[in-house]
Amino acid sequence: MSDSYERSVDLHRKHQGKLGVYCKVPLETREDLSLAYTPGVARPCELIHQDPAESYKLTMRGNSVCVLTDGTAVLGLGNIGPAAAMPVMEGKACLFKAFADIDAIPLCVDVPKGDEGTRQLIQIAKAIAPSYAGINLEDIAAPRCFAVEEALQDIGIPVMHDDQHGTAIVLLAAMINAMKIVGKDFGDARVVINGAGAAGTAIAKLLRCVDHEADVCVSVKEVIMCDSKGIISPDRDDLNDEKKDLLRFTNRPRISGSVHDAINGADVFIGVSVGNLLTAEDVSRMNDDAIIFAMANPTPEITPDEARKGGARIIGTGRSDYPNQVNNVLAFPGIFRGAIEAHATQIDGRMKLAAAHALAKAVGEPTEDMVLPNPLDKSVADTVAAAVKQAAIESGLSQLTSV
Amino acid sequence: MSDSYERSVDLHRKHQGKLGVYCKVPLETREDLSLAYTPGVARPCELIHQDPAESYKLTMRGNSVCVLTDGTAVLGLGNIGPAAAMPVMEGKACLFKAFADIDAIPLCVDVPKGDEGTRQLIQIAKAIAPSYAGINLEDIAAPRCFAVEEALQDIGIPVMHDDQHGTAIVLLAAMINAMKIVGKDFGDARVVINGAGAAGTAIAKLLRCVDHEADVCVSVKEVIMCDSKGIISPDRDDLNDEKKDLLRFTNRPRISGSVHDAINGADVFIGVSVGNLLTAEDVSRMNDDAIIFAMANPTPEITPDEARKGGARIIGTGRSDYPNQVNNVLAFPGIFRGAIEAHATQIDGRMKLAAAHALAKAVGEPTEDMVLPNPLDKSVADTVAAAVKQAAIESGLSQLTSV
Repeated sequence: MSDSYERSVDLHRKHQGKLGVYCKVPLETREDLSLAYTPGVARPCELIHQDPAESYKLTMRGNSVCVLTDGTAVLGLGNIGPAAAMPVMEGKACLFKAFADIDAIPLCVDVPKGDEGTRQLIQIAKAIAPSYAGINLEDIAAPRCFAVEEALQDIGIPVMHDDQHGTAIVLLAAMINAMKIVGKDFGDARVVINGAGAAGTAIAKLLRCVDHEADVCVSVKEVIMCDSKGIISPDRDDLNDEKKDLLRFTNRPRISGSVHDAINGADVFIGVSVGNLLTAEDVSRMNDDAIIFAMANPTPEITPDEARKGGARIIGTGRSDYPNQVNNVLAFPGIFRGAIEAHATQIDGRMKLAAAHALAKAVGEPTEDMVLPNPLDKSVADTVAAAVKQAAIESGLSQLTSV
Repeated sequence: MSDSYERSVDLHRKHQGKLGVYCKVPLETREDLSLAYTPGVARPCELIHQDPAESYKLTMRGNSVCVLTDGTAVLGLGNIGPAAAMPVMEGKACLFKAFADIDAIPLCVDVPKGDEGTRQLIQIAKAIAPSYAGINLEDIAAPRCFAVEEALQDIGIPVMHDDQHGTAIVLLAAMINAMKIVGKDFGDARVVINGAGAAGTAIAKLLRCVDHEADVCVSVKEVIMCDSKGIISPDRDDLNDEKKDLLRFTNRPRISGSVHDAINGADVFIGVSVGNLLTAEDVSRMNDDAIIFAMANPTPEITPDEARKGGARIIGTGRSDYPNQVNNVLAFPGIFRGAIEAHATQIDGRMKLAAAHALAKAVGEPTEDMVLPNPLDKSVADTVAAAVKQAAIESGLSQLTSV
C-alpha cells in the first residue's frame, strides 16, 4: 500500500478534490428558470415559512448531512486545521453518498483553541441546523468533542460524533459475534481498552451501558482503561475531568500500572491508540480464547500474526488487508439514513444499540475470520438503517406522523 | 406564468429540492477506498498542512462558493428565515453550476436579530472560509448586509453580496449601452433611484464612483435617491446612518419631496422598489429619450407600455417576458469564476467595473430592445470571467504566481 499516498495525491489533483454538486432540475429555458428560480420558487419558500417540516420535503435539507470538523484531530496527523482536513471530510461525504445515498456536505471551520473555540463551534453547529437533516461531527479532538456533541443533543436534528460512536458500535457488533464464537458470556467479559480519547471513551461507555437503559443493554463485567501513561486509576494525579469521569464505570478493582499489567487475565483487548504496543508475551497473559481488536492505523497495537502466537483466537484491526476490519463505514451511513427516515431529533442509546445488533446479525454465520460484514457490502447500510429507524420510533424520537 | 408557483412546488417536491452531491472518484474496491480515504488520503492532508495554497488544487474548495444567507430578505417575501430561504439558495447554487461550472453550496444560518446576529453572521462567514474559494452573500437585509460584507473584505477569499453589486453591475452595463443608443454622454446623466436598500445603495455608489478610482470610473452627473417616504434629503429626520451616508454623494442640489418630484428632468429612472409606482405622466416630465429600468418584481414600478406612452425610449425590467431583462445571472457566475481563476483575495471596484464593461460589450450591436445580453446565453459568463480575472491581476489582488 506504500504508493497509496502518492497515488492518492494524484487522484485528488486530477479531479480537484472528490466531491461536486449537480442540479437535479433543468435550467435551459426561461420556463425552467421560472420554476427553479423566480418567480415560481417563492411558493416553496412560502410553504416552508408556514410549515417548517416542509423543508425536509421541498429542499435538499431532507437528505443532507453536514460533515463538520475543526481539523483538530485528523487521522493520525492530529491538529492540522480545517483546510488540511478537507480531503478526509470529502472522503466521508463520498462514503455517505455511496453507502446511504445521503447528500453529505463537508464543512471545515476555523475556530480558536480552548473554551472560546468550543463555544464558537457549538454556535456554528446550532446556526447551520436549518440547512441539514443531521450533523456528523468528525475529527474533533477530545475533550472538546464531548462538550460539543453533548451541547448539540437538543437542537432538533440528530448530531453524532462518528469517531466516538461509530467506532464503538462496530466494535460492539464485532464483540457480540466474537464472544459467541469463543463460547463466552458477553456479560462475563473482562475488557482492556488502550486509548482514552474519543473512541476509547465511547467504547467504554457502550460496553458498560453508561447512558443506556438497563433492560436493553448488557454490560461487560469489567473495563480497564489505559492512556499513554498507563491504567486510568485513582492514584493518578494527572487526569483531566473527562478521564477522572471514566473511573465512575471502569477499573472497579482499582488496579494501577501499565497496559502490560492491565492485560493480565483479560478476555478482550481493544486498542485505539498507537502501533507496536503489545507483544505475543502480553497476549499470552490474557485468558484463553483471547479476543483482540487492535485498531491503531496504519500500524496496529499488535499484528494478527503476533497476537496469534500469543494465543489469541479472534483478531481484528482497522486495516483492510487483514480479516475483521473494524471500519466505521459499517455504521455511520446506515445510522444517519435510519435517523433521517425516522425524522428523528436525536441518535440516542437505543438507536446505537440497535445499529450494533443489526450489524452483528448481518453476518449470517460468523467465523473467527468474519465477525463483521464486509465493509464494501453496500446492503449493510439498509439493514442498519431499518433497525435504527425502528429504534427511533420506539424511543419516541421520531417525528413521523404515521408509523 | 400564474401556475409557475404550483408547478414550482411540484418540481421541488418531486426531486426533494434542486441540488445533490456526487463523488468524482470510484468507491467500489478496497483499493478505491485506500486512495479516496484511508490510508492514502493522509498525504493530501499533509501537503495542504505544509502549503495551504494546495487546498485549492487538491480539494473541492478550489471550485466552491458558499451561497450564504440568514433568510432576512428573501425575494419579495422578506424575513422568512433560513429554512424557508433554502429553495432560493439552491436555485442560486444551480445557476452557479450551470452558468460557471462552480460547485456552489447553499448555507442558510439561524442567527438572532440586531447587532448580535450581525456579529454571529460575520463570525460564521470567517469560520467557514477554509472550505470555500469565495462567499456569495444572498438575501441578507439592509443595513446588516452592508456591515457583513464590509467586515468580510479582508478574510483572504472574495466575498460579495450579489443583491447589492450584481444588480448594480448589470444595471451599469445596461445604462452604458442605453446612453450610447440615445446619444447622451454618460457623465451628463441625471439619475433617479427609487429604493434605498441593498440594491439601490450599491447602484448609487457605482454610478457615482464611490470607492472607485477616478481614472477608471466615470460618474454620472447626479443621483437622486428615494425611499418609500420620498427623496433622501437633509430635511428628513427619519434617516438611519446608512441613508444619511447617501447624502455624501447624492442629491447635491438638496431637493426634497417625493419620487414624483425627483423625476422631473431626469434622464434615467431606476426602480428597485415596488410595483405601480409611476405613471406615463411622471415619465413625460423626464428629459427627452428617457431611460427606465423598473425592476420591482413581479410587478414593475411602471410597465413598458405605460413608460413608452410617457415618452421613454429605452425600458428594462426584472422580468423575463419583457425585453431588456436586468438579471443578476448575467454577472455573479462570471464574476466569481474570474475571481476564482485569478485566485483573487477580494472582488474590488476595478473587478466590478470590468464585469460591467465586459457585459456591455458582449452585446455586439445594442438596440433599444437589447441593451443587455440574453440571460440564458451561457457564453456571457466566460466573457465576464476573463475581464474580471484580468482586473484582479491589475489590482494586485491575484495570488497567481505566473500571470
